[in-house]
Amino acid sequence: MKAKHPEVPEMMRAVRQHSAGGELLVESTLVPHPGPGEVLVKMAAAPINPSDLALLEGNYLARDYPFIPGLEGSGVVVTAGGGLLAGMRVGKRVACTPNPEGDGTWAEYMKTSAMRTVPLPPGVGSKQGAMMLVNPMTAMAFFQIALKGGHKAMVNNAAASALGKMLIRLSNQNRIPLINIVRKEEQFPELKSEGATHVLNSSDASFENDLQKLSGDLNATLFLDAVTGKQTSILLKAAPRGSTLLAYARLSGDPINVDPGILIKEEKRIEGFQLGNWLHTKGILYKLRFINRVKKQLSASLTSHINRSMYMEEVEEAISSYRENMSAGKIILLPGP
Amino acid sequence: MKAKHPEVPEMMRAVRQHSAGGELLVESTLVPHPGPGEVLVKMAAAPINPSDLALLEGNYLARDYPFIPGLEGSGVVVTAGGGLLAGMRVGKRVACTPNPEGDGTWAEYMKTSAMRTVPLPPGVGSKQGAMMLVNPMTAMAFFQIALKGGHKAMVNNAAASALGKMLIRLSNQNRIPLINIVRKEEQFPELKSEGATHVLNSSDASFENDLQKLSGDLNATLFLDAVTGKQTSILLKAAPRGSTLLAYARLSGDPINVDPGILIKEEKRIEGFQLGNWLHTKGILYKLRFINRVKKQLSASLTSHINRSMYMEEVEEAISSYRENMSAGKIILLPGP
Repeated sequence: MKAKHPEVPEMMRAVRQHSAGGELLVESTLVPHPGPGEVLVKMAAAPINPSDLALLEGNYLARDYPFIPGLEGSGVVVTAGGGLLAGMRVGKRVACTPNPEGDGTWAEYMKTSAMRTVPLPPGVGSKQGAMMLVNPMTAMAFFQIALKGGHKAMVNNAAASALGKMLIRLSNQNRIPLINIVRKEEQFPELKSEGATHVLNSSDASFENDLQKLSGDLNATLFLDAVTGKQTSILLKAAPRGSTLLAYARLSGDPINVDPGILIKEEKRIEGFQLGNWLHTKGILYKLRFINRVKKQLSASLTSHINRSMYMEEVEEAISSYRENMSAGKIILLPGP
Repeated sequence: MKAKHPEVPEMMRAVRQHSAGGELLVESTLVPHPGPGEVLVKMAAAPINPSDLALLEGNYLARDYPFIPGLEGSGVVVTAGGGLLAGMRVGKRVACTPNPEGDGTWAEYMKTSAMRTVPLPPGVGSKQGAMMLVNPMTAMAFFQIALKGGHKAMVNNAAASALGKMLIRLSNQNRIPLINIVRKEEQFPELKSEGATHVLNSSDASFENDLQKLSGDLNATLFLDAVTGKQTSILLKAAPRGSTLLAYARLSGDPINVDPGILIKEEKRIEGFQLGNWLHTKGILYKLRFINRVKKQLSASLTSHINRSMYMEEVEEAISSYRENMSAGKIILLPGP
């Protein structure tokens, strides 16, 4: 098993960044060798996620440079570095995430722990399969947190995102009301068509009052905050007593400024959420059950709308067009024709 | 039981405030009537705590004005408004706290729920007994939180306070290391004599590095923050991955400013802590066990140094002298000679 598969070349093309915030280059580099418990995946597709953007800016996880970005994707396992699970994965179509601090999915090949690969269900194609882990697992994690914490309803302030739409569908399935916050009136109809019941516009003059009233009425005590910065203090002020705010992205790029009196008087809390960190705290059985549940829901509630597929060589253009309009849908990177 | 005790007068003297931040007046007002489940306590002594100062400034709990301040004290139960527990308390020396949003202890009499009274152990005098609830229960609560959360060590940034000294003693008893933060070098010897092992000075140039190193070495992941404001972001930055910061007072009066990236990347969280809120989440059996444990420790680890006793009429002077030097010890208010 340790020998390289005859079809695997010595060199591959990969997107690489040489410093935080630096330019993305498509370069020729060595195909990695999987170690014990690891597999080599021949990549088929990989999405661009908000967490990729944060990583490229250098403010998400610690990194050594140069590195290959891409926090999830799909492909076929071509070789294994040893170990039972790794061996069982050979020849399988999988969704995969990179090792922590390891090179990512925006390449022709990626090595990763076999534990970080999940066989794709038969009906799921490479592109949807490439988006099977980060957003669906994050959405599902939020509902697990809501159920475990006894939260009766939730608030999400990136409602028009792919993740936001999954949350809307899961909210209806689980009968946990969700207050959806968008920045533009024009995003209302699409969210309504996804099944959203409660949509608020953060640009409205009455937003703070509306949010306070609605979250109070629904007893919405779990706030999912992808924007952070100024909006965090607005959310916390409006939140019912005892609320938890999960900061899970920093789309505004601004610091959080909050009156400690609100936290102390009203038993409120702010927690950072990052999927990998959260999963890391769970046992192996929990993880397996969790991933199974995600797989089951994948063809129904947890699909993402794809805006466009582009080749790796066009990565800079792909990123700017994703940044310009994240709510238009996902952009998928393909390693080549 | 509903009839008033013959010795209880119609009118009493009490400290009253007529608006948030307003002056304190000693006024004549009606002695309250205890309702079902409530008792009337003839007050013997009451301390001034940092939470009283916050309450007087109007930024701690919601209030109707005028109101009588004082969040704890001791005295003798003179009448009961009905109910088994209330009836059993009549004639007993108790430590007591006011009903939420009810009038407080800085008066000749206070009515409160019988549940909010704890019989004083025989050896405990009125003055120590008056300080038996807020600080000792807060200190004990922090250790319960540390044990339950699996925290290996703690940090407290109001180390020279009465609460800070209780934490030092409990830290040695429970063998949970405590990093004590003070603002002045001159506070070191006293803390060392209380048994403190780790003392850092937040005014030192190397403070942030020292705290990062020491909290990392000890795996101190529970930060008790009475100062809040700028120091919160310094503590959070220095804190090991996965740390929880409990904001329990706002001595600086400043807002908290924090980079959401630190929370997200490093799994950190900020929670408000207020004793009443925390106890409110616990069941009755937990509360009874908890109060028993506090009572047992009261004569050893949980005593507070008393700086001075003053009469109610001197309340304004008492507060300024407490504010000037909180670490000198507690000031006890007595209703009269």
